[in-house]
Amino acid sequence: MKIFISQLNPIIGDLAGNTDKILKEIEKAKEQKADVVVFAELAICGYPPDDLLFFPDFQEEMHRQLNRIVEASENIFVVVGLVRPNNEKKGKSLFNSAAIICNKELLGYKDKTLLPTYNVFDEGRYFAEGGEQKVFEYKGKKIGILICEDIWEHMNLPYAQYARDPVEEMNKLKPDILLVVTASPYYHEKMDLRLQIYRDCVKTLHCPLIATNQVGGNDQLIFDGYSCAMNEKGDVLYLAPPFKEESFLLDLDKKLKPIKVQIDHLADLYNALVLGVKDYFTKLNLNKACLGLSGGIDSALTASIAVDALGKENIVAISMPSRFSSLSSMDDADELANNLGIQLQHMPIDHLFQQFLDMLSPVFAGRKFDVTEENIQARIRGIILMAVSNKFGYIVLSTGNKSEMAMGYATLYGDMTGGLGILNDVAKSQVFELAKYVNREKEIIPKNIIEKPPSAELRADQKDEDELPSYDIVDVVLRDYVEDHLTPEDIIKRHKYPKPQVEDLIKRIHKAEYKRRQGPPGLRVSKTSFSKGRFFPIVQKWVSYQSL
Amino acid sequence: MKIFISQLNPIIGDLAGNTDKILKEIEKAKEQKADVVVFAELAICGYPPDDLLFFPDFQEEMHRQLNRIVEASENIFVVVGLVRPNNEKKGKSLFNSAAIICNKELLGYKDKTLLPTYNVFDEGRYFAEGGEQKVFEYKGKKIGILICEDIWEHMNLPYAQYARDPVEEMNKLKPDILLVVTASPYYHEKMDLRLQIYRDCVKTLHCPLIATNQVGGNDQLIFDGYSCAMNEKGDVLYLAPPFKEESFLLDLDKKLKPIKVQIDHLADLYNALVLGVKDYFTKLNLNKACLGLSGGIDSALTASIAVDALGKENIVAISMPSRFSSLSSMDDADELANNLGIQLQHMPIDHLFQQFLDMLSPVFAGRKFDVTEENIQARIRGIILMAVSNKFGYIVLSTGNKSEMAMGYATLYGDMTGGLGILNDVAKSQVFELAKYVNREKEIIPKNIIEKPPSAELRADQKDEDELPSYDIVDVVLRDYVEDHLTPEDIIKRHKYPKPQVEDLIKRIHKAEYKRRQGPPGLRVSKTSFSKGRFFPIVQKWVSYQSL
Repeated sequence: MKIFISQLNPIIGDLAGNTDKILKEIEKAKEQKADVVVFAELAICGYPPDDLLFFPDFQEEMHRQLNRIVEASENIFVVVGLVRPNNEKKGKSLFNSAAIICNKELLGYKDKTLLPTYNVFDEGRYFAEGGEQKVFEYKGKKIGILICEDIWEHMNLPYAQYARDPVEEMNKLKPDILLVVTASPYYHEKMDLRLQIYRDCVKTLHCPLIATNQVGGNDQLIFDGYSCAMNEKGDVLYLAPPFKEESFLLDLDKKLKPIKVQIDHLADLYNALVLGVKDYFTKLNLNKACLGLSGGIDSALTASIAVDALGKENIVAISMPSRFSSLSSMDDADELANNLGIQLQHMPIDHLFQQFLDMLSPVFAGRKFDVTEENIQARIRGIILMAVSNKFGYIVLSTGNKSEMAMGYATLYGDMTGGLGILNDVAKSQVFELAKYVNREKEIIPKNIIEKPPSAELRADQKDEDELPSYDIVDVVLRDYVEDHLTPEDIIKRHKYPKPQVEDLIKRIHKAEYKRRQGPPGLRVSKTSFSKGRFFPIVQKWVSYQSL
Repeated sequence: MKIFISQLNPIIGDLAGNTDKILKEIEKAKEQKADVVVFAELAICGYPPDDLLFFPDFQEEMHRQLNRIVEASENIFVVVGLVRPNNEKKGKSLFNSAAIICNKELLGYKDKTLLPTYNVFDEGRYFAEGGEQKVFEYKGKKIGILICEDIWEHMNLPYAQYARDPVEEMNKLKPDILLVVTASPYYHEKMDLRLQIYRDCVKTLHCPLIATNQVGGNDQLIFDGYSCAMNEKGDVLYLAPPFKEESFLLDLDKKLKPIKVQIDHLADLYNALVLGVKDYFTKLNLNKACLGLSGGIDSALTASIAVDALGKENIVAISMPSRFSSLSSMDDADELANNLGIQLQHMPIDHLFQQFLDMLSPVFAGRKFDVTEENIQARIRGIILMAVSNKFGYIVLSTGNKSEMAMGYATLYGDMTGGLGILNDVAKSQVFELAKYVNREKEIIPKNIIEKPPSAELRADQKDEDELPSYDIVDVVLRDYVEDHLTPEDIIKRHKYPKPQVEDLIKRIHKAEYKRRQGPPGLRVSKTSFSKGRFFPIVQKWVSYQSL
């Protein structure tokens, strides 16, 4: 049996456009004499469609596009993810489903059984739970179909426990092949986990597994692709390249050699960010970005990623020094822009800063320089970037990293200005790793930028580490507390950090909640990001930060 | 049987503080010889606790506080909402539950059956579905307990369909009294619906119903209270006052006269906003706010609400005219500040505006005045407000209304600056109604502010209606499309509006998605607000707004 795996990059809500692509792939599959062609979860509308699902005309259009696919299915067995109305039982009005189509006939649907409602997923908001598992017979083979989360309960992860295990249910039907239709978003090092789950599945089912994933960036979520075929022994037979569209004809009747899987997690992280930026722009029909270049490592990395995503001719960088900017930082920014081949405009802001100070001096009389004056500088820069954005139609890229977002070390409406926060989910320690990755072949980010101690340069002789412990410690607490929900007590025990230090960091995380609520959309690349899938109250007393 | 209804205002996560209040209420109930005392849903932690639920120490502390309540339950039957671990079945690890306690003994739990996962609710993220219904016998009466959503399926609302109807299940147990433990957030005119549901329940169960609700503002959600007792015929025997803490001893053995329910929906809307502001500040231990006063109706209404919430001595208003501000607007702002008795500072921004223009002129050479220059003015005002906020610890109140948020008629990082957007969920037509409500006894908001045509005054002779249809039309489309998910076609049919007009408005709604994503937290007072419980992609092609 020949199976054509189609890893596509859909645009959310572009039902006709996505279906056009699907039809082209079906033609390609037919040309290659495929028996079966399989697409990703919700392939017709893209994942996640969010509340667009509530509009009745969205459902009607989905049905019209499905009919186009049915018409094109002569002599081929098609499995395609979509949404369909639930007219069968009480509960939510929709199913997250896969249509099974062959020879111009809609053979049936497989509805998703397990509806992830945790982290970035909220499928319980839209969908009813699917009924029994089914297999579809084609050319003498029993083809089982499961949808994404359906196979995850088989691993018994702590954060996704369901009353049913569709893999066990499927096992009773003795499928010859399992097709897994997925829209599984990327996070750092997640692919290891997926391979483990696929192995657990084939171990139970004793049949090959073919998982087709979506690829592409959709708002905060980035889908890495990595569609995969595995034999019944758990050997990987095919692994689609990540972060790009790809299709592949897998001939299960041939003796296929297992491939050795080697995943470069750092390269994946970088490429995830590049694709996230690229798709955010191109799917909006935009191509130009501007950003402030301070001479610091965050804006340097942001600029490098932006150049790889959009092309150097589409990046406008602006240097906006104030009285506290060091000469070496300005030189570093110049050198970086030169290495990247991007335009760098110089717009010193000190006279504007002084004007604000003068205007406010009667009101502020007798009060010391504090975070107020620091923020004014960052906000003047925000105005300039947004003015350039408004006048020329560029999108502003904000440059804050996850550690800063955690600590509140960023100015709301200042350096948090932007249409996209590329590094919002990248911890400071990863920023350093990625900067070195950028320089893997030649020095693009000047060494001095990587080596100097982090500073916002918003007052004289400022260093981040004057107020905070080193970012190594910050990032560990960030991981344990934000990603893994460890208690402060457990974090203290695990790392032997001083209690006041851990408590202070956790207070800062909660105190900055109000800022993050208004931050730019960020690309999610960690298990738990601040940008999507994490909900904490601003007003709460579980963690009281009055003492900060 | 004497039932003590306790309508409290908890602070999210303040488990010890909330329990202190609960214990005081139990003492009061005992003094009044109550047989039963009943509190709201999740009374110990407050609703909604969001992802705080994921921390194990949060659960442990909840258990400790429960023990304090058990100790205090001598001679009284206590029903109190809380979260408890699910050690009984597969699925999510927690139950949204009510503990039933009497004579220092924990008699058992009633776990919530229906877990709302729609609109502002995401209980499917945290909780497992409760098992069978139960009644608890006390002093010869069978007391049935249901939790909030548990009774809503009995009405068969289109947006909350479940496979089970706990009211029907309860009916088999023939309760003598039904206690409904709720945390039901306010929206405009919702109380009418609640009364209808209570009536449907008693009609089925033939027994009195007592619904205890939480009161208070928690981030975007405002809980109105309105705890209610109804006899088996559907007569209201008691209705707690809205928007305040209250307790009441209801003696079911006495012949109680039905009360006539008259709800002033406009007053409720105003008072909801006042409480939302008050609790946002006081629960953060803050009390001072600042805002820009333009002489327009939105900032006038915002200031009035803020004064009622925080007191006139705690409001600092700033007038920041530019070259486009009319003299009459400045006079209006002066008169309003005078009527409200608040401080008004004058900080003209035109010289700063000119400085930005001068700085940008080489870059902008040859380009016309457009929205860029409008936004610069709004953003200078944002910097000033935030500077005052940072220096003195005030929270900035942003003044945009829901119609503006819908249309993108607000400047991101400009007038969208703020810690709280009081009117973010109040449509422009409601703004006018509320302004008149403020003036119900005497003129506080000058008549001229109410009567002049809306304008942002960011360029010469600007009027909102130069670009938009009248706000009456905008607000109808807003309600039909955003709140009720009607299709454009249905809206056109229903109101006979021209097709291009409706389509243009809907495109604007989607185009402004990126702005709203970064807007200040707003108080939710409509069924569907932009601030919470509405999820749309920024990058999508279902509604293409390229042509705008």
